[in-house]
Amino acid sequence: MFFGSDNQTGASSQVLEMLNSANSGYAHGYGDDQWSYKAVDALKEIFECDLEAYFVTTGTASNALALSCMVKPWESILCHRHAHIIMDESTGPENFTGGSRLIPISRGEGKITADHLKEYFQKASTNFPHNSKAGALSITQASEFGLVYTPDEIRVLTAVAKANGVTTHMDGARFANALASLKSTPAELSWRSGVDVLSLGATKCGAICAEAVLFFNRELAEPFVHQRKRTGHLISKGRFIGAQFAGWLQNNHWLDLAEHANIKAAQLSEALLSFKELHLVWPVQANELFVIMPADLAAFLHEAGAQFYQWYADALPPDIEINSDEVTIRLVTSFATEDKDIEEFCDLIRQYFSADSLLICYDNIKCKPL
Amino acid sequence: MFFGSDNQTGASSQVLEMLNSANSGYAHGYGDDQWSYKAVDALKEIFECDLEAYFVTTGTASNALALSCMVKPWESILCHRHAHIIMDESTGPENFTGGSRLIPISRGEGKITADHLKEYFQKASTNFPHNSKAGALSITQASEFGLVYTPDEIRVLTAVAKANGVTTHMDGARFANALASLKSTPAELSWRSGVDVLSLGATKCGAICAEAVLFFNRELAEPFVHQRKRTGHLISKGRFIGAQFAGWLQNNHWLDLAEHANIKAAQLSEALLSFKELHLVWPVQANELFVIMPADLAAFLHEAGAQFYQWYADALPPDIEINSDEVTIRLVTSFATEDKDIEEFCDLIRQYFSADSLLICYDNIKCKPL
Amino acid sequence: MFFGSDNQTGASSQVLEMLNSANSGYAHGYGDDQWSYKAVDALKEIFECDLEAYFVTTGTASNALALSCMVKPWESILCHRHAHIIMDESTGPENFTGGSRLIPISRGEGKITADHLKEYFQKASTNFPHNSKAGALSITQASEFGLVYTPDEIRVLTAVAKANGVTTHMDGARFANALASLKSTPAELSWRSGVDVLSLGATKCGAICAEAVLFFNRELAEPFVHQRKRTGHLISKGRFIGAQFAGWLQNNHWLDLAEHANIKAAQLSEALLSFKELHLVWPVQANELFVIMPADLAAFLHEAGAQFYQWYADALPPDIEINSDEVTIRLVTSFATEDKDIEEFCDLIRQYFSADSLLICYDNIKCKPL
Amino acid sequence: MFFGSDNQTGASSQVLEMLNSANSGYAHGYGDDQWSYKAVDALKEIFECDLEAYFVTTGTASNALALSCMVKPWESILCHRHAHIIMDESTGPENFTGGSRLIPISRGEGKITADHLKEYFQKASTNFPHNSKAGALSITQASEFGLVYTPDEIRVLTAVAKANGVTTHMDGARFANALASLKSTPAELSWRSGVDVLSLGATKCGAICAEAVLFFNRELAEPFVHQRKRTGHLISKGRFIGAQFAGWLQNNHWLDLAEHANIKAAQLSEALLSFKELHLVWPVQANELFVIMPADLAAFLHEAGAQFYQWYADALPPDIEINSDEVTIRLVTSFATEDKDIEEFCDLIRQYFSADSLLICYDNIKCKPL
Repeated sequence: MFFGSDNQTGASSQVLEMLNSANSGYAHGYGDDQWSYKAVDALKEIFECDLEAYFVTTGTASNALALSCMVKPWESILCHRHAHIIMDESTGPENFTGGSRLIPISRGEGKITADHLKEYFQKASTNFPHNSKAGALSITQASEFGLVYTPDEIRVLTAVAKANGVTTHMDGARFANALASLKSTPAELSWRSGVDVLSLGATKCGAICAEAVLFFNRELAEPFVHQRKRTGHLISKGRFIGAQFAGWLQNNHWLDLAEHANIKAAQLSEALLSFKELHLVWPVQANELFVIMPADLAAFLHEAGAQFYQWYADALPPDIEINSDEVTIRLVTSFATEDKDIEEFCDLIRQYFSADSLLICYDNIKCKPL
Repeated sequence: MFFGSDNQTGASSQVLEMLNSANSGYAHGYGDDQWSYKAVDALKEIFECDLEAYFVTTGTASNALALSCMVKPWESILCHRHAHIIMDESTGPENFTGGSRLIPISRGEGKITADHLKEYFQKASTNFPHNSKAGALSITQASEFGLVYTPDEIRVLTAVAKANGVTTHMDGARFANALASLKSTPAELSWRSGVDVLSLGATKCGAICAEAVLFFNRELAEPFVHQRKRTGHLISKGRFIGAQFAGWLQNNHWLDLAEHANIKAAQLSEALLSFKELHLVWPVQANELFVIMPADLAAFLHEAGAQFYQWYADALPPDIEINSDEVTIRLVTSFATEDKDIEEFCDLIRQYFSADSLLICYDNIKCKPL
Repeated sequence: MFFGSDNQTGASSQVLEMLNSANSGYAHGYGDDQWSYKAVDALKEIFECDLEAYFVTTGTASNALALSCMVKPWESILCHRHAHIIMDESTGPENFTGGSRLIPISRGEGKITADHLKEYFQKASTNFPHNSKAGALSITQASEFGLVYTPDEIRVLTAVAKANGVTTHMDGARFANALASLKSTPAELSWRSGVDVLSLGATKCGAICAEAVLFFNRELAEPFVHQRKRTGHLISKGRFIGAQFAGWLQNNHWLDLAEHANIKAAQLSEALLSFKELHLVWPVQANELFVIMPADLAAFLHEAGAQFYQWYADALPPDIEINSDEVTIRLVTSFATEDKDIEEFCDLIRQYFSADSLLICYDNIKCKPL
Repeated sequence: MFFGSDNQTGASSQVLEMLNSANSGYAHGYGDDQWSYKAVDALKEIFECDLEAYFVTTGTASNALALSCMVKPWESILCHRHAHIIMDESTGPENFTGGSRLIPISRGEGKITADHLKEYFQKASTNFPHNSKAGALSITQASEFGLVYTPDEIRVLTAVAKANGVTTHMDGARFANALASLKSTPAELSWRSGVDVLSLGATKCGAICAEAVLFFNRELAEPFVHQRKRTGHLISKGRFIGAQFAGWLQNNHWLDLAEHANIKAAQLSEALLSFKELHLVWPVQANELFVIMPADLAAFLHEAGAQFYQWYADALPPDIEINSDEVTIRLVTSFATEDKDIEEFCDLIRQYFSADSLLICYDNIKCKPL
């Protein structure tokens, strides 16, 4: 029952096979190889445009490198207050950008809204050297709370951003899950809706370590190859990253993997809601669930071997109340989640709510959110 | 009627005289001169301890250099949401620290409270590489809203900080005003209450360009001389900065200047409160006033030549309401403020509230807060 | 005939098998997995000490992260004038260290000598803020010219460094080749000879993307986990890097791979020296050869499909002369080099030196050294 | 006898008077004042073009800020191996530019020659992400060895730079001395000869702390105001820097001061050459002399109160030999140097060379070059 993160999985067999097939013979280094070219071509076709694509091995690098091409060191990056870039990537964005500032512009909501953005720009100072002007907006698709931005929502956000001289980055660590959820097209969810740069993650959805930075706005790409090299993110045997992407994208494999994860999340959600004591914080739109449950139950599940993380107390929207003996936990499904994982998990919950288990007193589980 | 900022003044005559007297003959460069030594000795005596003192020419440099000695690039700096370091110094702190993050921990209050700090530490993650752990707390004395921290308040804040492994910086751009207001001692307002490093500003209170970084916690000082040089803040003819400080500190001159400014602020406050249409946002404890007034009055005063800035709409505490036709303005008094400045200002207000002026319609004044 | 670089190879089958075997089931992320632990244990055993080991995916990251733990931003790093860190990693070292400076201290020699170091320290300024004091020495084993540092040579260099307050980093991108060449022990070539931190590369010698930073001087390691995260080098599915190392180290596999490469280099060297028109710049001590040959021959070989790079004109030692119609090329052998590669290469040379080929005139090959 | 540096002087009376006159009344901060405007107007008139001018307080800031507008973090800056930016400003250039690299391209010569530049570009790699491409050239006028670049020499250097996509910065800490020496025009010595950005120093030649960055190539200026603020170099009471420049430039005062210094250097040079035991390393073209003398004499002079620095052993050109009992010292004259300083200095030398003094044995003087 590994619901801790979709990065607790291995690679899908199709991705691994392509990686293995790339091991034959010699190839030029640094991405100058047929697997990398194949992956770039696939991306151009899938996204229906002549984008520039670069590969790296981590989501933090993908996000931070993208942002470093979009802002000056004295500018700011607007993001959700629980964005991965502000919560989970140390001071990576500051480091890669030469000292830009992250400004959280949301409050209790699970996504950034146009109102957040407009309010920010209304009170923001103009391009005065004393202040740090906004240079980029970063939104996460699917969001850190498992919510998806519809094309309409993206269009409105990027329009407000653009009207204020700000370009838009999309952290697509779970872009595939959002895509599978919305039944939209990759182009519709990105450049056609005004996204300038997309960090497209394969790692969480079936690859080993493969992330791509896609520049739809190609004018922004110029610094990328230099920044990637000087941050140590140019892989010498680049074919192995290219091959992962080639395998991942081939025959809609990436969407199949994402859809599987989403379906398991929906199943898990339905199963959990059958317990009247449990509540979902947000609707389940991709592959993440945020569940309010008794702290003792969380501890019991944890002890029984279930993997998940307790989530930040301040993550809850203002209209949701939580009792002092309750906690919020995050559950993430993946391409590898099986029905029996869900069944075992629910069996444990049933067991807990049976008379006997109520006598047991557990310590709180450790909070180690990722 | 220059109430825009205390940096709109020149130098006091005593400071200027000492600077002129330092112009005789040759001297070694880079602070190795009698005026700089004299200033350091005066600081040691006044602060009653064997501190390390370094001089620079701007408050931004003083704050950012101090902080760069207190945090690692992956750590964060806790501060008030309207702290000068986060509002008015571009991305200076990020730049000097190599990418540390500023985290605003206050809400509507005019000062940081122990509750803010405790709440932050309760929900903060431990020293996990994914997160940016707090490394320093920075408080401003007097605060950006003209409020002073009492020694007791400082002691509580620094104790909470220290208990969480965090050192305390004090932005003392208006330290002299706070000192004159509290009738405390320099030691009591700084190291005796747990402050590790003080950025002591003379510029706003009578000098030309003279700021000192005082390390009470001398272990933190080691990087300073290197950081000061590589940020271009080591003045070659250092005697002229040392001389400003020597003149400023001599015979309690600095406190006389600050007390004058405070007294004028109190007078101005009293005069303004005689108008029932005007309201003070915060009590006047040093030399800054935040006044809610009709937007038309602000425009009228501005047109008539009064210098001041409209303040940020989000600066108000939650319990204070403002009408849509009102604005908040900031008024700053200084060592140079004269009674006639106050009288002229109040005369204009009276003139505005007389029947005739009400017919005039002014555009809003420009918001350019500093 | 791929002699361009040892990074033009794929992975050895043993490394690839271990990576594949790591794909079963779930595992915790970020290096908290059995494969990573197994790799660390192997390193401790092989290096006979309780080192701290961290994994990354590129040599540039490995070098730059190591150095960022060893110097302050105002200090310098001493290195060979043709060191990989100064020639081939963009401004990576400057970027990771926050602005440290690389100082080349060698001249025509292929390795750094104690005389270079001593001369540097004699004329270097003391810890004066105007100057950038040396903080670390970085030596490459095997060197960028394919030469190895003997334990005695390392001991002398690290002793001079240490006597001047400088720690020693070893860029071990080809450490395995040096080890196989010297028949020494890993400990003897590193910490027993005074090396503080080793960047141990597996990529060039049989892995896909696997580099380890080994801290023998564990006091230096404290910033590492934070720096690795904020530079985007913490791999989420860390088991796949750990597995590569585990497979690489198992049963002396790494040394077998390196020895194979070295033997092929020796064979190639012997074969080339049978042509009186060809000359070696340096003795062949590991898996790199630097060959002076007619420019037309280089062009002929290139056209015929041989892969190699022309090398920098200023790489030659002062006592070696080169004619204007000659060039220096670098040939690198690897674990994958076969006898037939060498034979084909020599056949081409023979063909060139036969009468007919002399009539052909080729353009110069492109210089694109890596 | 202060020949240590021209920064050991105070301010000229005209500069100080203007600074004092600026102390009347209130003024807007941050350079928005009549003195700053007057200074900018004077610079435009003197340099005969519509330049952009910004003021700071140190030469290190002036140089580093200028360079930060001229190169990307992955590019390099070409300079003389004894340039102030590489010898005396810590890692300031690296810090301000976000990690650019300084590359010394000269050898024994006292100035950079076109041959140095051409040789560099011949062997330099193209814009390959592995390498750090040159982005700027920085030359010092007068050079760190007291030599001046003629307009012809500047034109050739900037032409070679421009042909290779490189812009040219001039470190004009002693620009006035070069100008007084060459009897050229400010425009001729800067933009008319291809200089893009000039760091014009007043501090060493009569001001307290006043340096200007002049952008002739105005396209490069865009980042300046942001960089100046975030590095803490925007002076709040800017009128006092503007006033120094206004006073310095008025009625050719700056050239009078520089010419005085140059004349005294020439007198000192002539006087010293009357001693057959003394030798000049470089011709005296501005206000610096480099003199080879017996180490005992240098010690004797030092003991007798003369201020100067022993210079770097590796500063000498290859064709000049020095005995083991000799040293090279630097003597700097200034606007404040008087005839009696020269006479006293020569009297001491005469005294030393008289019989008695030869019996005395002094320790070597401390080497502390600036």
